[in-house]
Amino acid sequence: MKIKIFVTGGTFDKEYNELNGELFFKDTHLSEILALGRSRIPVDIRTLMMIDSLKMTDNDRNTIAQNCIQVPEEKIVITHGTDTMVETATVLASQIKNKTIVITGAMIPYKFGSSDGLFNLGSALAFVQTLPVGIYIAMNGRYFNWDNVRKNKELGEFVTLK
Amino acid sequence: MKIKIFVTGGTFDKEYNELNGELFFKDTHLSEILALGRSRIPVDIRTLMMIDSLKMTDNDRNTIAQNCIQVPEEKIVITHGTDTMVETATVLASQIKNKTIVITGAMIPYKFGSSDGLFNLGSALAFVQTLPVGIYIAMNGRYFNWDNVRKNKELGEFVTLK
Amino acid sequence: MKIKIFVTGGTFDKEYNELNGELFFKDTHLSEILALGRSRIPVDIRTLMMIDSLKMTDNDRNTIAQNCIQVPEEKIVITHGTDTMVETATVLASQIKNKTIVITGAMIPYKFGSSDGLFNLGSALAFVQTLPVGIYIAMNGRYFNWDNVRKNKELGEFVTLK
Amino acid sequence: MKIKIFVTGGTFDKEYNELNGELFFKDTHLSEILALGRSRIPVDIRTLMMIDSLKMTDNDRNTIAQNCIQVPEEKIVITHGTDTMVETATVLASQIKNKTIVITGAMIPYKFGSSDGLFNLGSALAFVQTLPVGIYIAMNGRYFNWDNVRKNKELGEFVTLK
Repeated sequence: MKIKIFVTGGTFDKEYNELNGELFFKDTHLSEILALGRSRIPVDIRTLMMIDSLKMTDNDRNTIAQNCIQVPEEKIVITHGTDTMVETATVLASQIKNKTIVITGAMIPYKFGSSDGLFNLGSALAFVQTLPVGIYIAMNGRYFNWDNVRKNKELGEFVTLK
Repeated sequence: MKIKIFVTGGTFDKEYNELNGELFFKDTHLSEILALGRSRIPVDIRTLMMIDSLKMTDNDRNTIAQNCIQVPEEKIVITHGTDTMVETATVLASQIKNKTIVITGAMIPYKFGSSDGLFNLGSALAFVQTLPVGIYIAMNGRYFNWDNVRKNKELGEFVTLK
Repeated sequence: MKIKIFVTGGTFDKEYNELNGELFFKDTHLSEILALGRSRIPVDIRTLMMIDSLKMTDNDRNTIAQNCIQVPEEKIVITHGTDTMVETATVLASQIKNKTIVITGAMIPYKFGSSDGLFNLGSALAFVQTLPVGIYIAMNGRYFNWDNVRKNKELGEFVTLK
Repeated sequence: MKIKIFVTGGTFDKEYNELNGELFFKDTHLSEILALGRSRIPVDIRTLMMIDSLKMTDNDRNTIAQNCIQVPEEKIVITHGTDTMVETATVLASQIKNKTIVITGAMIPYKFGSSDGLFNLGSALAFVQTLPVGIYIAMNGRYFNWDNVRKNKELGEFVTLK
């Protein structure tokens, strides 16, 4: 059972540009993170985009959905900026009914050394292997159904709606 | 649903003693690791022992089993040295039939900065929330049933028996 | 021989705000960095300001100079953003003729885990102990006289003028 | 002015073998550490041995001394285990009268992420550029003349004899 990993950017993959002091995207660190975790699950990683999720358009979300539909894998992890994870999950839920899709991300860039990304990726890969068909967000050690989650932006954490 | 975490030592919690150049145990880093992962799952951490799993006796394994039986929690994560995880899982399986118990550990001490521990703990906490009653080992991004796993000591990774 | 350390901000002390994704200043990490380096040199650390050096005004530079003049210590290290180190060194050189002052900084924030800050602070403290009276910049493992240095902004490194 | 760096092993370059849980030497990390520090000083790195300094013999010390004598560089940094730095410095002082040689090391392996090695190397490179001819130990942010230093093994730090 191979797991598909779609990379879309987000804090997870941000880096610090030491020449101008700004954060930017270069390449994804997913392979490096999986190697650090000594992961031996068969995965296939594909970068769909490298953007801040606040800049993600409806078009981008449809691109993600189309890719989820077209690949043969039935278990998919998506790395994504945390700010609009719920919007993307909602688009996916409206179009995909037969796959287990887990969206995850990070509050701190992986490259900054004290990131939650390694923990989140470990949990997302575990959830995608064990949860039934559906669209989920995995953050803060928990999983949330796509229609029962929001990001509390003051606390920087995900909570259920009810 | 609170998750019980039992700490038994292992590479996970080893530290470097800069005065004599040896590895040793001081305190567990579990709370620190969970904070780094921004975990918001209710957990209760209890240190049962702080030992290298090669030094774990039958008596120690019975102590772990008794603790698993006595606590009210039905979902338990155990941090453990990797060398004898399978032996402990076997003892637990013989005595406990009504709980989900996931044993995890690390190949590199958490304090050494490039540890697989954060990834493994993320996956173990996810597996314990989603797997049915049973005794499991969570390593290398996967979960293994207690009776279908061994550590390949040449590669330093866990594989199924068949 | 106590060394005075004046903190003015700069990349050295920047942190990542995980709630809004921006870099900001909270407190200086100087004590933490010195502890990590197992430094046993007597130092006295004082934060004069916590700003990006591109925002440093003539007034700020005079504040730094006045502080350098007023303290009894004859050996002073200043942590500073790299972009305008040379301007500050020039102001100090015009006002101070009897102290050894070494300005240093970092290209990567200390908190990001792969910073040059620890290396630079080690070299700045060594240079201030051994160089004669004068105003210097310590970066890239070297020291530069205040009137023979510029930052090559394309490469992010300091070079002599001639 | 090129600086010669001789690598002899010591805690600086120790790594953790995740298969057997022991510390060992593979390759030196000097180039990596200098890159992290954005060092631009011309250096030439040569590994003479990779050993724990408690295992260093008179023969090994003579090898180090011979190499110091034979190279054209007049400024030399030696990375070395901390336990017998003083013995090596004494051998060098008896044979070499015309070079500046700075011996440094680390209490924590560089690979463990929270090492003093980066700080120490920064200070050693600065001291070797600025100190007069002589044999020195650079640790704890300070430099020590070879004949006025000992390691306080209880505290893990270097102090003067008087």
